[in-house]
Amino acid sequence: MKFKLFPITAIVLAGLATAGVAHAQAKPEETLKMRQGLFQAIKTNFGPIGAVAKGEAPLSADTAARAENLAALAKIAPMGFPAGSENIAGGKTKPEAWQKAEFKAGFEALQAESAKLAEVAKGGDVNALKAQVGAVGKTCKACHDSFRAE
Amino acid sequence: MKFKLFPITAIVLAGLATAGVAHAQAKPEETLKMRQGLFQAIKTNFGPIGAVAKGEAPLSADTAARAENLAALAKIAPMGFPAGSENIAGGKTKPEAWQKAEFKAGFEALQAESAKLAEVAKGGDVNALKAQVGAVGKTCKACHDSFRAE
Repeated sequence: MKFKLFPITAIVLAGLATAGVAHAQAKPEETLKMRQGLFQAIKTNFGPIGAVAKGEAPLSADTAARAENLAALAKIAPMGFPAGSENIAGGKTKPEAWQKAEFKAGFEALQAESAKLAEVAKGGDVNALKAQVGAVGKTCKACHDSFRAE
Repeated sequence: MKFKLFPITAIVLAGLATAGVAHAQAKPEETLKMRQGLFQAIKTNFGPIGAVAKGEAPLSADTAARAENLAALAKIAPMGFPAGSENIAGGKTKPEAWQKAEFKAGFEALQAESAKLAEVAKGGDVNALKAQVGAVGKTCKACHDSFRAE
């Protein structure tokens, strides 16, 4: 099998090189789609955790998995805001955000609080989960209030 | 501080409840944006790892971080394909995919191989990285060949 793997790997790597170039020259609409898609994924994962915090659903393995996803997405989300993407048509982020220390700090706060949420969600304490959901939500609200244009 | 936290938490939870409802009734275009945004994020993270595998960039902490991101995104990506999203306008996935065991298995293969890549990327062995990049790339190609409409 080994001799067969090498050509396939070469083909895959050739494709990746193209993908790498494509990323370096990512179209503005691709960057915006990534940005908005990542935040839709954050919402998709955080929403059902909020329902658990409200007592509308039981704390379960699904809650813990979504909290892990959220913590990962918090780390990835800044990739949706590369330098030079301040004025993409259809973007909802104030261009001034890119120059603000609070914007970067806001992501770091989201990352820290969602990492804590991922830990809390592994336990069975709904009150602790509720408190930490609130802490995460505050980081969302802080950045949205400051930097979302609409 | 504690008495101040509770009203804020209540506001956040009220917002989340709305978000939860919004998710349950996610618009088709939101689902598609999430799907395509997640795959753009996969490309954004996998591309530079491929460059390392090709010897175009050094294996670094950035490589390991991107591999962690990729492994997380592989777990999240199936959320872009919920039941009922087979025929969203602008989608590039063959509607038959939702009925195929190979489609689910394809995501599981991507998840398994990218989790291995995250482990390999923590080490300093570029040849091992190259082999595992090839293994991940094969899972991408398999699903794209079978289920991508264009």
